[in-house]
Amino acid sequence: MAVYTEVSDVALAAFLETYDLGGVRALKGIAEGVENSNFLLHTEKGYFILTLYEKRVEADSLPFFLALMDHLAERGLSCPRPVRARSGSALGRLSGRPAAIVTFLDGVCRNRPDVGDCERIGEALARLHQAAADFKGSRANALSLSAWPQLFAPLRFCADDVESGLTAAIAAELAFLKTRWPRDLPRGIIHADLFPDNVLFLGDEVSGLIDFYFACTDDLAYDLAICLNAWCFEPDGAFSIAKAAALFEGYQRVRRLTPAEAAAIPVLARGAALRFALTRLIDWLNVPAGALVSPKDPLEYIGKLRFHQRIGEAEQLGLNPK
Amino acid sequence: MAVYTEVSDVALAAFLETYDLGGVRALKGIAEGVENSNFLLHTEKGYFILTLYEKRVEADSLPFFLALMDHLAERGLSCPRPVRARSGSALGRLSGRPAAIVTFLDGVCRNRPDVGDCERIGEALARLHQAAADFKGSRANALSLSAWPQLFAPLRFCADDVESGLTAAIAAELAFLKTRWPRDLPRGIIHADLFPDNVLFLGDEVSGLIDFYFACTDDLAYDLAICLNAWCFEPDGAFSIAKAAALFEGYQRVRRLTPAEAAAIPVLARGAALRFALTRLIDWLNVPAGALVSPKDPLEYIGKLRFHQRIGEAEQLGLNPK
Repeated sequence: MAVYTEVSDVALAAFLETYDLGGVRALKGIAEGVENSNFLLHTEKGYFILTLYEKRVEADSLPFFLALMDHLAERGLSCPRPVRARSGSALGRLSGRPAAIVTFLDGVCRNRPDVGDCERIGEALARLHQAAADFKGSRANALSLSAWPQLFAPLRFCADDVESGLTAAIAAELAFLKTRWPRDLPRGIIHADLFPDNVLFLGDEVSGLIDFYFACTDDLAYDLAICLNAWCFEPDGAFSIAKAAALFEGYQRVRRLTPAEAAAIPVLARGAALRFALTRLIDWLNVPAGALVSPKDPLEYIGKLRFHQRIGEAEQLGLNPK
Repeated sequence: MAVYTEVSDVALAAFLETYDLGGVRALKGIAEGVENSNFLLHTEKGYFILTLYEKRVEADSLPFFLALMDHLAERGLSCPRPVRARSGSALGRLSGRPAAIVTFLDGVCRNRPDVGDCERIGEALARLHQAAADFKGSRANALSLSAWPQLFAPLRFCADDVESGLTAAIAAELAFLKTRWPRDLPRGIIHADLFPDNVLFLGDEVSGLIDFYFACTDDLAYDLAICLNAWCFEPDGAFSIAKAAALFEGYQRVRRLTPAEAAAIPVLARGAALRFALTRLIDWLNVPAGALVSPKDPLEYIGKLRFHQRIGEAEQLGLNPK
């Protein structure tokens, strides 16, 4: 649920006058994205999404995110495309917040993705990596390996309240990842948050990828490891090797992993599990009074981490050597 | 903010198969209405609102609400029109809840209604009363004079926590209203909740009236008193006699008040102020943990009640004798 900032009819009308979208016909706050305020906007020119960027999104990175979406759409990827104001700028201000209008994409999220969906997601992710290959912008991953100790620092004193022994387990995992994290893998722009709620389907086809507000420059295979964790576990926590094999198959049909990337997948998957466990722990332990967001269970990702700790080779994750 | 129940893509597809609306193209939870879960639904046939009725809405009254909207739309009033399934029924079940699909209305709520808007609201309310005149259904007002003592009972012990002396003030007002409440006024179907967030405007015109889930059979002039309180006070709490005069003018252009109705407006306005003060007090004192709804300040309506307690004649409220 996310509408943190209200938009008055008068302010909206003034904002729209800086665009070539005609007058406003409707505006509905929508429950999408947890970081920003999102609205479905109907104007005389069609349906759009209006986003007001809240404090948790770095304002300095907004031009990067918008330029990336523009570039990806230009390359034929189905993602929200920023609409430019008459001034040429894709970024404006509304109700005291940075604000942008992007195109509205049809599609519905999959609540229970199946094997075929995982294959299509692998393919879509590889196409995203390819489409971004000639993008000029870059952005450091603020939530990468080097940031995890800082994320963990305030949790040292309360992680055991969530589950006994968790503090020691996370400290040990951080030490492991620090020594074993792969170096010199192919890098590029990654989505970094391609969870099922950020992928739209129409029938059996992926109709759109959304929410690029974690996109950054990092190892491409790390993005695949994030998807492995997000798409290839069953609701009861069991790993689905069939879904994982389909994910890798779909990805490699478009972009073949290098031998070093394939070998690194188990460690990348541990890191990806820890990264989401850490941010979910922070959200879990810091729910503000009157919050509109229900935090996600951090233990889901601790469970995924424990699964990956028992894995030795990428083959055990369904990645077949070619 | 209101999306209490999630709808899976599979359940939605099955639900839509019972309609002639084609396949689903998009579904977005929207922040509208505090009692139900609402979604913007895009299908191959256009844009609609999908509502899942939550526990606070009486399930037995749903056929009344839907039939009323159908009747009003048939009479030319711009309001959401229920879409019937192939079975002919406007009410189905989805995700374990009663559910309905209604047409999507363009328009934007007024955050700061002006005098002209108040005149248009008066006119729209009178047209609603006229359009409903030959509606066969009826529904007792569950929040009328006779219900207020029950609403107040649990508040006796905590209203003073909100403001010192409030319990005694409300008890005295209930005693006053019990003896002075008008009888034998013209009755009919009233909206009973026509606040600015339930009225859509396109440019200067009222483009739609929404949220009929408090509609009931009661004194028509009581509906006007509810609007007087909802539309004719400034954000700082000051009464605007210019807005009130415009509201009455707009209403009477379509439907003239009887002398008894005109004389009763001051008492009806006191009752209307108390009714919303009571339900807001209940919401204020009963915010559940993890609620997605921010309760509205009950003291706003206590202030309006105090204003009306100082009024003797309808003329002081801008209602000119004709």
